[in-house]
Amino acid sequence: MINSSVVAAENAKREADLRSDYDALGDHLARRGIDIAAIKDRAKSFGVAVPSWGTGTGGTRFARFPGLGEPRHIFDKLDDCGVIHGLAQATPTVSLHIPWDKADPAEMLAKAEEHGLGFDAMNSNTFQDQDEQAHSYKYGSLSHTDAATRSQAVEHNIECIEIGDKLGSKALTVWIGDGSNFPGQTHMGRQFDRYMESMKAIYGHLPDDWRIFSEHKIYEPAFYSTVVQDWGTSYIIASELGDKAQCLVDLGHHAPNVNIEMIVSRLIRQGKLGGFHFNDSKYGDDDLDSGTIDPYRLFLVFNELVDAEGTDGLNLSHMIDQSHNVTDPIESLMISACEIQRAFVQASLVDRTALAGYQDCNDALMASATLRRAFRTDVEPILAMARLEQGGAIDPVATYRASGYRAQVAEVRPKVSGAGGGIV
Amino acid sequence: MINSSVVAAENAKREADLRSDYDALGDHLARRGIDIAAIKDRAKSFGVAVPSWGTGTGGTRFARFPGLGEPRHIFDKLDDCGVIHGLAQATPTVSLHIPWDKADPAEMLAKAEEHGLGFDAMNSNTFQDQDEQAHSYKYGSLSHTDAATRSQAVEHNIECIEIGDKLGSKALTVWIGDGSNFPGQTHMGRQFDRYMESMKAIYGHLPDDWRIFSEHKIYEPAFYSTVVQDWGTSYIIASELGDKAQCLVDLGHHAPNVNIEMIVSRLIRQGKLGGFHFNDSKYGDDDLDSGTIDPYRLFLVFNELVDAEGTDGLNLSHMIDQSHNVTDPIESLMISACEIQRAFVQASLVDRTALAGYQDCNDALMASATLRRAFRTDVEPILAMARLEQGGAIDPVATYRASGYRAQVAEVRPKVSGAGGGIV
Amino acid sequence: MINSSVVAAENAKREADLRSDYDALGDHLARRGIDIAAIKDRAKSFGVAVPSWGTGTGGTRFARFPGLGEPRHIFDKLDDCGVIHGLAQATPTVSLHIPWDKADPAEMLAKAEEHGLGFDAMNSNTFQDQDEQAHSYKYGSLSHTDAATRSQAVEHNIECIEIGDKLGSKALTVWIGDGSNFPGQTHMGRQFDRYMESMKAIYGHLPDDWRIFSEHKIYEPAFYSTVVQDWGTSYIIASELGDKAQCLVDLGHHAPNVNIEMIVSRLIRQGKLGGFHFNDSKYGDDDLDSGTIDPYRLFLVFNELVDAEGTDGLNLSHMIDQSHNVTDPIESLMISACEIQRAFVQASLVDRTALAGYQDCNDALMASATLRRAFRTDVEPILAMARLEQGGAIDPVATYRASGYRAQVAEVRPKVSGAGGGIV
Amino acid sequence: MINSSVVAAENAKREADLRSDYDALGDHLARRGIDIAAIKDRAKSFGVAVPSWGTGTGGTRFARFPGLGEPRHIFDKLDDCGVIHGLAQATPTVSLHIPWDKADPAEMLAKAEEHGLGFDAMNSNTFQDQDEQAHSYKYGSLSHTDAATRSQAVEHNIECIEIGDKLGSKALTVWIGDGSNFPGQTHMGRQFDRYMESMKAIYGHLPDDWRIFSEHKIYEPAFYSTVVQDWGTSYIIASELGDKAQCLVDLGHHAPNVNIEMIVSRLIRQGKLGGFHFNDSKYGDDDLDSGTIDPYRLFLVFNELVDAEGTDGLNLSHMIDQSHNVTDPIESLMISACEIQRAFVQASLVDRTALAGYQDCNDALMASATLRRAFRTDVEPILAMARLEQGGAIDPVATYRASGYRAQVAEVRPKVSGAGGGIV
Repeated sequence: MINSSVVAAENAKREADLRSDYDALGDHLARRGIDIAAIKDRAKSFGVAVPSWGTGTGGTRFARFPGLGEPRHIFDKLDDCGVIHGLAQATPTVSLHIPWDKADPAEMLAKAEEHGLGFDAMNSNTFQDQDEQAHSYKYGSLSHTDAATRSQAVEHNIECIEIGDKLGSKALTVWIGDGSNFPGQTHMGRQFDRYMESMKAIYGHLPDDWRIFSEHKIYEPAFYSTVVQDWGTSYIIASELGDKAQCLVDLGHHAPNVNIEMIVSRLIRQGKLGGFHFNDSKYGDDDLDSGTIDPYRLFLVFNELVDAEGTDGLNLSHMIDQSHNVTDPIESLMISACEIQRAFVQASLVDRTALAGYQDCNDALMASATLRRAFRTDVEPILAMARLEQGGAIDPVATYRASGYRAQVAEVRPKVSGAGGGIV
Repeated sequence: MINSSVVAAENAKREADLRSDYDALGDHLARRGIDIAAIKDRAKSFGVAVPSWGTGTGGTRFARFPGLGEPRHIFDKLDDCGVIHGLAQATPTVSLHIPWDKADPAEMLAKAEEHGLGFDAMNSNTFQDQDEQAHSYKYGSLSHTDAATRSQAVEHNIECIEIGDKLGSKALTVWIGDGSNFPGQTHMGRQFDRYMESMKAIYGHLPDDWRIFSEHKIYEPAFYSTVVQDWGTSYIIASELGDKAQCLVDLGHHAPNVNIEMIVSRLIRQGKLGGFHFNDSKYGDDDLDSGTIDPYRLFLVFNELVDAEGTDGLNLSHMIDQSHNVTDPIESLMISACEIQRAFVQASLVDRTALAGYQDCNDALMASATLRRAFRTDVEPILAMARLEQGGAIDPVATYRASGYRAQVAEVRPKVSGAGGGIV
Repeated sequence: MINSSVVAAENAKREADLRSDYDALGDHLARRGIDIAAIKDRAKSFGVAVPSWGTGTGGTRFARFPGLGEPRHIFDKLDDCGVIHGLAQATPTVSLHIPWDKADPAEMLAKAEEHGLGFDAMNSNTFQDQDEQAHSYKYGSLSHTDAATRSQAVEHNIECIEIGDKLGSKALTVWIGDGSNFPGQTHMGRQFDRYMESMKAIYGHLPDDWRIFSEHKIYEPAFYSTVVQDWGTSYIIASELGDKAQCLVDLGHHAPNVNIEMIVSRLIRQGKLGGFHFNDSKYGDDDLDSGTIDPYRLFLVFNELVDAEGTDGLNLSHMIDQSHNVTDPIESLMISACEIQRAFVQASLVDRTALAGYQDCNDALMASATLRRAFRTDVEPILAMARLEQGGAIDPVATYRASGYRAQVAEVRPKVSGAGGGIV
Repeated sequence: MINSSVVAAENAKREADLRSDYDALGDHLARRGIDIAAIKDRAKSFGVAVPSWGTGTGGTRFARFPGLGEPRHIFDKLDDCGVIHGLAQATPTVSLHIPWDKADPAEMLAKAEEHGLGFDAMNSNTFQDQDEQAHSYKYGSLSHTDAATRSQAVEHNIECIEIGDKLGSKALTVWIGDGSNFPGQTHMGRQFDRYMESMKAIYGHLPDDWRIFSEHKIYEPAFYSTVVQDWGTSYIIASELGDKAQCLVDLGHHAPNVNIEMIVSRLIRQGKLGGFHFNDSKYGDDDLDSGTIDPYRLFLVFNELVDAEGTDGLNLSHMIDQSHNVTDPIESLMISACEIQRAFVQASLVDRTALAGYQDCNDALMASATLRRAFRTDVEPILAMARLEQGGAIDPVATYRASGYRAQVAEVRPKVSGAGGGIV
């Protein structure tokens, strides 16, 4: 863990400047009728889950280039998550992936408690074959033509629920790679029927206070059709399953040009928005760090969420889902959490009364300007002060680097050699 | 109208070759276990509606370059539709657009009867302002913030139903341009609520044997958000309205890369596929002639439709919806109808028993090859023979050109000068 | 024109707050080692041309909904441009479009002088037919198969140069709609050869101190192929023509997902970047207001431009090119100019020494954070102070609205009724 | 190898039908003025290289699901290539990938000779790290900021040339993953300069009768910017390097909606088209089997190539580049070679005199119809007869399956277990 004296020393270097910036911003916001302290409290209340696998270096189908001190197992990952939350104070929970994170639940709970962490949604994996597995997922899992393969996939999801139940998780996210690579390879209607049958079996095992999230993706790993290809199909799934089923939106899983915030709006209206997988993308499911490619798009998503606060039954599960190929994953996760929190705080600054007025009289220019005014407000002092007041770092990355954490864990965690991706 | 002696003379030049080709294809298909006569009967049974406005030269926002003999009114358009159906024998109905086609219903019925034509779905227009109109649609129609504007748009749709009812139409297609050009311009949730309220009012006036089609489009004329932006929203609309509401799929109204045939499959499963607007596209809503850019995509759509034949309640309304900017609209409509019919006939050749077998055992290569085998079969002799046997032309375009029809109508229909599009 | 007392009164309401914000920002920037006054001077030095046609309400192929007080001719447009520059102080030049803006050069110069405006690049129009025209551009202009049509288009461009020469313009922008709607419609190689031949003829008439800009666009109004479809073709054109030929980049003319700032970087390296048409887009050539959809993309473009300052021979021509369909064009142009200027100023804040250091050691995270830090700095006080000190408005839109300018011109400029776009 | 008696037996089942189909097609083509024998000769003359790595099952970043009898090394791969060419008679050469295929050149030559195979372009690999490698390619190779890493990458490419030289190869294809994942990560201009410097060093080692191919790709594995991102950059590279440098077009490496055949046309005009990597795609670089997603697009590419036959200096290198994730790679490669050959043969049927006539008089409809007529001609009898007459199989897949080859090699080649892709 990061020594608190390192944090204190790093914060000491920056605190005076931060207080100047914070006070100036407070004055400015006061002139706009906004209480900076209230916004800071909102920032403190915000949390997004870290995916356990995000702590390892990611890769592409061409190659993976590991870094130093790659986590060996869930306990190393939880240590890394503890560092992330300790410094950035925005990621109070961890989302697990089974079977990658299988371990003794009691030990996991103890380790999580040590870091002040909880467990968010569970993630099942039926897009890869495991050594011990009886049936291959090469041609699908929950929607496979073979009943035994489907059963195996259903059982795996039920096991994920059981593990999660012991850890205090309250949700299962189901993302599958099922689909096809060729027109004709599958009968798209019957394949979907099989999928629904499997999902109903899983749904039947969901505890009363759990939710199940259906996550759509336009393509990859299937390159012609994907069973849960868009929010339309995801919505049908969640509707057919029942009240405990909702849709999860990953920001990188859409067709080019699609208006994602509009999908968010639609799912909120239908009572079927369950949560998000945050990341950013320029081309496909690039899984880049949140807010690094199109920060305004991220803001517009949060604009919908802040607008919908108080909607009956709205209970969102936020998770980061990124692939950190060229950065230290701990750094990327801290920065990403901050960027997501930034969008939430910026969206909290929107003058919604003025906005509604402009919308009602079709003053498109001023309505648009109202959103941009909130977006361009530099809320970094609010985020930094929220971190500082909660025991975190004013500058999480600089503090992390000063701590020497990565070098320390690299001494105990063995070096991993580079490897080709899936293509060879 | 085209003189029947012209048709006979043109057919005479080609009939011997056609019979050779037809017989050879019949032999070949027989070896594949397919009865060519049955397929020819299917070809004869196929019909797609011509949109009345498609008989005029289209344009872009930059310019419109009219041709000779542009139709002046619905009666000229019906004459052109008569020529199209007379030669290509694949377009027995016409789809009207109000107010462009407003005229005395009795006269329209008489003119249609003269050409052996019926009336397909009615199309309302609330994306343009008409001179006599009290409220502008600049900021929306069915979803406008102003109740009076919404009422005006609802009334217009009801009038379209009333006109259609007199003509024997049984469906109303609602496509609107409502949306926004800027983030924030509209509250996307409230805008959709207003849209639904308006649609429910229209639905309430729908005769029992009518259907209402909701048509989605990702963008244009609205460039940031569109109220009915994709099939997911269209499906919600049709579900919320009731059994008489279904979704209409325009092939050019999707985000890039989207798998359209999969949407078709989903809507069929949900009992909500109402019909199509056929055209082809490479970039956006290009409204190009059907089958000229990606003929295999068109085939894959029909592969789903032929596969679904016999599905309870499936009753599809097919219409062409193209903008003919650089061709003679009559020629483009004949050729497009033939290409749509071609895809239907090719899809009828798929060996579905073999395909299902390959799908069940995940033989992706042979499943894909099974579709391609049907697609690459040159069914032109079947289409031509179907035309010939029904009194049409073996080669519709050559026959049309030989007839001199365009020059004839250009003598009575005044020359229209070129014009800029919407931008100036 | 806007009465200066209105400006003074509006500024008086906001000056105290502005000075507070400006001082606070100055303190903050000083801590980052940046002199706010120097940045403000850069802001003052920045200018972007207003397109004369942008002062009128735009439309789509579906419809155009004019507003009040639409400009009747170039003199009205120059008045509007005077208002825009007077209030926003960022648009010192106007870009003309021939034949729309044909008038007596001396009168135009006088009117421009009255408003303190100059003339930027000339724009030719061979994508529409004019009444008096001998040959139609329906099937192309500079690349038409018919030599007489090509000659006519060449002559028109030469005339644009001659007009511009009298007005002090120093550049001609050539954008054409030539292309095709169907595979096979044109021989793409021969069509390009004809285009080059025409461009060489125009180039031969270019004065020594002029430049000619080739502007590419992926599609529209041609929907299958476009002669100058991307920057690769544009680069070949500029290279083959000679030193006075360069490429113009319109932000909305690219394929989905394309990295535009990379194209900017490549063209700078090749000495072939001539300038920009600024706007924003979500789907196609949406021509939305600059910075309203993806402000970070606009910043990244300016990041390349600021980085390249001092490059030998770099001389950029900046122009707005938008279609204002639902806003008052004067407001949209003022706000767009400010957003473009904002991106320029934000890009001026990038710590390039630190950035180069991070790049050299592959510290991707800190390199990316360095750009974002500049981007998220709220430079509005700098922009507003620059306006104020130059006699403009702290809040251009509020001041414009307070002036009642639109209502005044609506009294003398006749009401224009709505109209369909190109499709009917 | 496949026993010739198996081929004979399988062909015997199909020969009579084939002759009937071939004769009927010959009659039909004769009526169109085309000599089927000449077309068949063209089919026989056509060849496309098989990539050695294509014989193994591919994967995605999520997983790889190997099949039975995966080739262990280049000699197994050459055996598989021998089967492919033996049955489909369209793939006379193999393209190697270094270091995957490093082995004794003399042994490789002997094995290739055994199968009647030659060696096509060499492919270097600097997108993965190899165990023995001094410098990592995590942050780039030919464009790396570190000179030693660039040198290592240059040396590797020179080694590829040396190996290829011993095998009779005459070209080197350079595809790199260099780019960035974040705005700011690299200075795009300096990165490109470093790339050019490295390429010039490689070019300096190119034998006089060799060519070097620059291959562009819009994204992946880099997700924000890629050094050789499109044909524009690739063209600049080939121009700057010299006459022995040309551009290679991979059909899946473009932005959505891009008109690939137009790029082909441009590169032919500039004398810079070197060859192709064939595959098909729906979303990104899907690497699907050629002709399975959009066969008309493949035809349109060949339409350009056949049109350009005889162009001075045109010498194209054709290669398949696919990832076979769910099929037997041998089957996919045979079928893909046939589909590419099919497009070539269909394009050979275009009536180019008629087409040029339609183009000259802007008869868009008939020009487009002329291409479609060629495309829809079912040339399978020509392809099958060409195979039969050259000792191949009328039905390559059925014959391959009948041979039991896969089961045979699975007995000697050890089973490979499934594995995750790059992400974990």
